[in-house]
Amino acid sequence: MRLAIDAMGGDHAPKELVLGAVKAVKEFADLQITLIGDEAKIKEHLEDHSAISVIHTEEKITSEDEPVKAVRKKKQASLVLMANEVKEGRADACISAGNTGALMSAGLFIVGRIKGIDRPALSPTLPTVDGQGFLLLDVGANVDAKPQHLQQYGLMGSIYMEKVGQVERPKVGLLNVGTEVGKGNELTKKAYHLLSELPINFVGNVEARDLLQGVADVVVTDGFSGNIALKTTEGTALTLFSMVKDKLMTNTKTKIAAALAKNELRGLKDQLDYSEYGGAALFGLSAPVVKAHGSSNHQAVYSAIRQTIRIVEKDVIRKITEDVQQMKVTGEEE
Amino acid sequence: MRLAIDAMGGDHAPKELVLGAVKAVKEFADLQITLIGDEAKIKEHLEDHSAISVIHTEEKITSEDEPVKAVRKKKQASLVLMANEVKEGRADACISAGNTGALMSAGLFIVGRIKGIDRPALSPTLPTVDGQGFLLLDVGANVDAKPQHLQQYGLMGSIYMEKVGQVERPKVGLLNVGTEVGKGNELTKKAYHLLSELPINFVGNVEARDLLQGVADVVVTDGFSGNIALKTTEGTALTLFSMVKDKLMTNTKTKIAAALAKNELRGLKDQLDYSEYGGAALFGLSAPVVKAHGSSNHQAVYSAIRQTIRIVEKDVIRKITEDVQQMKVTGEEE
Repeated sequence: MRLAIDAMGGDHAPKELVLGAVKAVKEFADLQITLIGDEAKIKEHLEDHSAISVIHTEEKITSEDEPVKAVRKKKQASLVLMANEVKEGRADACISAGNTGALMSAGLFIVGRIKGIDRPALSPTLPTVDGQGFLLLDVGANVDAKPQHLQQYGLMGSIYMEKVGQVERPKVGLLNVGTEVGKGNELTKKAYHLLSELPINFVGNVEARDLLQGVADVVVTDGFSGNIALKTTEGTALTLFSMVKDKLMTNTKTKIAAALAKNELRGLKDQLDYSEYGGAALFGLSAPVVKAHGSSNHQAVYSAIRQTIRIVEKDVIRKITEDVQQMKVTGEEE
Repeated sequence: MRLAIDAMGGDHAPKELVLGAVKAVKEFADLQITLIGDEAKIKEHLEDHSAISVIHTEEKITSEDEPVKAVRKKKQASLVLMANEVKEGRADACISAGNTGALMSAGLFIVGRIKGIDRPALSPTLPTVDGQGFLLLDVGANVDAKPQHLQQYGLMGSIYMEKVGQVERPKVGLLNVGTEVGKGNELTKKAYHLLSELPINFVGNVEARDLLQGVADVVVTDGFSGNIALKTTEGTALTLFSMVKDKLMTNTKTKIAAALAKNELRGLKDQLDYSEYGGAALFGLSAPVVKAHGSSNHQAVYSAIRQTIRIVEKDVIRKITEDVQQMKVTGEEE
């Protein structure tokens, strides 16, 4: 298996990308990785390893770049060359921790969509209390979603969670303002019926307050609301952690308390750590394109690589392609 | 000032409603309260007080009732009679902790809209790290909002935060998927420009992850996204609190830690306690209609009453009515 990795994307590039790649090739015997970026900087952190090759380029897309324009103009950028590797068949999948919008554009314009999928969905796994996690899609690839897009997300998410998450008949929920049938805006009311028609385990509407409790394995929503849900979760968790920390620094008594409970509270933070859950796949493209978190350390990069390997091994893209065709045929008959 | 209160709505009705009302009339000299509900049950908790009167009814709307139908059919329900008190001019404002949808329906159909406001907005105050809180609107009165609705929310929220929240030139932000101008879906892109035209302190797009940090005093969004943001915040906070609690019960060491830091951690929970922030006003109606949290205890009921008194005293409705007229005139000139 061959993966292309944008070595220049993310807050800790290229170091953590290179270290994550090195860890991965040691772990997976048949893995070949192509790192794309500034060769001299990459080699500072690269152990000599036959399974890793480098494509040198000095151009890169920054987080400030306007995504669509950057992908069109910066033809030698590491992220663009990475997508080219997939397009030209020299890599089975690709990973970047860089500009999310640019990765989506490169996915759409260079890697290309699966026939029958209108819009790809950015799909991170969020933590749950039981440590199992749930897939949330879309979180911002498509902020003006239509009901049939949400239907396609349900199908793609279910396939991913079954094949890669190894959940039998994954529960697919529709994010909504109430659990009752008939609740919601025009979009979710129509999407509800379309999701009901699919051969998946659709459990109906789910509410935002139950997400971290693991109310569903896959939660379907439009990119705008999904982005709000994702960032509200992140913001609330970070704010609360820092408030707890402040409270435990109040006085001598609380500082002793902090010392006594240190391991357990750290365990809690790990339990909710995104980096353990891998990256956010862009489903709906003709090859796996995975976004690692911008702040990824080498462990998070390694998790994203492991996740990408599973997507390739389990043939998720082919299964999505076949099922979408099937769905369209069924749709036409009605 | 005369307030009508639905004594039968909420998880702890009528007891906590009655106790909250008693506390309020002791505090505010010129306050008259009419409690509507089952007289015998109300009187169990009611001290003899000349400032409180009771309208007896046995009918009530439950949380399971379909809102619009319930308001139309149950003409003697406590919530409906409460709204009638306002409509008939016997009360200046009203408060219920019952079925939110039914309260919105009663507000719309019985109390009525302000001329020029298309759709009312449900507007709770959410906690922030600094204890100041921010107004989020709408959180679900109108799940299919149009750009001009969001513009009206900005105006109403700004007036409320200035008059009642006593914030000078309140910062009004638009909830969006990124802070840059031009970000967002069709709705927010258009709303951005409409909000820019208002004589308010519009600070542009704000992201969900910064809400609890107090990035704005008023955050404008459509009812669907606002509901997701509100419930995600609640769900994440509750989940984290219960996880911290579990961790502190792990072993003897952590139990000692919990005992040592008890006061400070309880302080944190109070800091994020909704009940201190009052209820959620329904802005855009021709009189103040306030939704107290369903789980309100008497302190939360008292907070909602105090907040409602301020809305009446500060003449928020008249100011909204005048400014909306002004806005329409300005709009027509362009």
